[in-house]
Amino acid sequence: MAEAQRASEFDLIDRIRRRVLVRDDVLLGIGDDAAVLQVPTGRCLVVAADTLNAGVHFPEDTAPADIGWKALAVNLSDLAAMGAEPAWCTLSLSLPASDERWLDGFLDGFLELAHAHRVALVGGDTTRGPLSISVTVHGFVAPGRALRRDAARVGDDVWVSGTLGDAAAALAQWREGVARDAFLRARLDRPTPRIALGRALADVAHACIDVSDGLLADLAHVCRASGVGARIELDRLPWSDALRTAFDGDARHAMQAGGGDDYELCFTASTELRDEVERAARDAATPVARIGRIVEGEAPCAVRVDGSAWQPERTGFEHFT
Amino acid sequence: MAEAQRASEFDLIDRIRRRVLVRDDVLLGIGDDAAVLQVPTGRCLVVAADTLNAGVHFPEDTAPADIGWKALAVNLSDLAAMGAEPAWCTLSLSLPASDERWLDGFLDGFLELAHAHRVALVGGDTTRGPLSISVTVHGFVAPGRALRRDAARVGDDVWVSGTLGDAAAALAQWREGVARDAFLRARLDRPTPRIALGRALADVAHACIDVSDGLLADLAHVCRASGVGARIELDRLPWSDALRTAFDGDARHAMQAGGGDDYELCFTASTELRDEVERAARDAATPVARIGRIVEGEAPCAVRVDGSAWQPERTGFEHFT
Repeated sequence: MAEAQRASEFDLIDRIRRRVLVRDDVLLGIGDDAAVLQVPTGRCLVVAADTLNAGVHFPEDTAPADIGWKALAVNLSDLAAMGAEPAWCTLSLSLPASDERWLDGFLDGFLELAHAHRVALVGGDTTRGPLSISVTVHGFVAPGRALRRDAARVGDDVWVSGTLGDAAAALAQWREGVARDAFLRARLDRPTPRIALGRALADVAHACIDVSDGLLADLAHVCRASGVGARIELDRLPWSDALRTAFDGDARHAMQAGGGDDYELCFTASTELRDEVERAARDAATPVARIGRIVEGEAPCAVRVDGSAWQPERTGFEHFT
Repeated sequence: MAEAQRASEFDLIDRIRRRVLVRDDVLLGIGDDAAVLQVPTGRCLVVAADTLNAGVHFPEDTAPADIGWKALAVNLSDLAAMGAEPAWCTLSLSLPASDERWLDGFLDGFLELAHAHRVALVGGDTTRGPLSISVTVHGFVAPGRALRRDAARVGDDVWVSGTLGDAAAALAQWREGVARDAFLRARLDRPTPRIALGRALADVAHACIDVSDGLLADLAHVCRASGVGARIELDRLPWSDALRTAFDGDARHAMQAGGGDDYELCFTASTELRDEVERAARDAATPVARIGRIVEGEAPCAVRVDGSAWQPERTGFEHFT
């Protein structure tokens, strides 16, 4: 019986195939050498790829369903930051051993989020190796409508969605070994890709990026790509009640300005379109906050916070440093 | 100076970006949250994803350039098996540490093959973790022209391209610690994706698959998907001079029939189209051999070799078993 319980690679694939969403534009899905897909006439294809590794991108004791959710969420967040409509994904899963219970849990989280955004899993592979999840997501955008990093203009408002610093706070509680607040933990484990907001902003915003490395680090990417600077007011950064209860003063500010993994959208828009931005936010049921302005570039410290130059080295998550 | 030599994640990305191919249908490439791409009007998108892990898919001492080549080759081979024209890829690279020399070597091999097939690298990510390479490739095919696994018909000839067993022979020499034949080793480390043949067969062949798990295992996938059986003649399996020199008799036959990693195409076509198959092979400058026939299904042993049932458990590479 032990042998029968050990699922083969093909059983794993069948296990996945039985649970995926059906879409008319998937002409051939899981089970062949490749998927065959139909991009709608007159739309551009948007593609992003992100990997999560155990111990690097999530604590080893993270629940499989949360790992599944997050692996897709960080990718959908990239589509959100482009203003794109999600459609399909592929999943490359490296597992130390075949484990049906782990896989079922992983799929619970992955497919819950996929179904919520009508994303079909169309292919990928399962391999033996240290736990690692590589996802590639595909979506659509109207020609010329993608929200790029290089489109910020001097005079634009800088906006951010949701609240900042929650994921960093959850990670700090985990590192300190103190009781983890459930809200903060959910923000770390189950980030919300801001798909509806991104799509609503496609006709309103100039530049956009998702906050994965930390607000200031990500805003610095926008400034560098656009050849501009930014001035941010620290007290305008949005916080959750849970963050305010758990951390205050400098610790809280550092998490809001520098903590990664929030997957909110940071975007710029003309000051004349403040009403339109707020309408887009209402339509997407996603709060937004105006946190600063785009100014002339001031290299090498493009982003200034409360008038002081911000050192890119100080905060923001970057691999290999 | 040690600090300066340690490349950051963004330096790595810049290092990659400087070397990639430019294509007109890449509207936005590496450097934003996602790529924006233009699929030609009237064509379907074909997508495949495959991962290579160190120690599982290649020996730890494999040269970085060979790892780069193979990571893309196994993916392009999936496009070849669909009869698709390659266009773009994403690369998710997990590295234990930042290492510019390793990365440059890896890119040498990866981009040499990418440029040969006019494939543009359009995105991906670099993360810290055990060495692992996840690639997703994108290509195009005319509607209804993809070569599927489920399209084999009773009476079809079974064909295979190139030679079989070379990669398995190289792996056997590596495991036995004997001197490795250079030709066999190149077949293992630098497989040739049969893109030109796949495209030439798109209007000729019925079913097609690439030989990654081993000829008989892969042909069994075709039989299962198509609801048919196959009869193969062992002596018709093509071999290289190098394989014949290094191994003979049963060892050679086992490698040809069961060895994985050859990345040749196994396909079926109507007996009336033998001339057309041979013309496609000449046009693609790729030898093909006729090795058997598709017959009525004979579950559970769909594939018979020289009249004997072949046990799927006996040969063929499968993870998690």
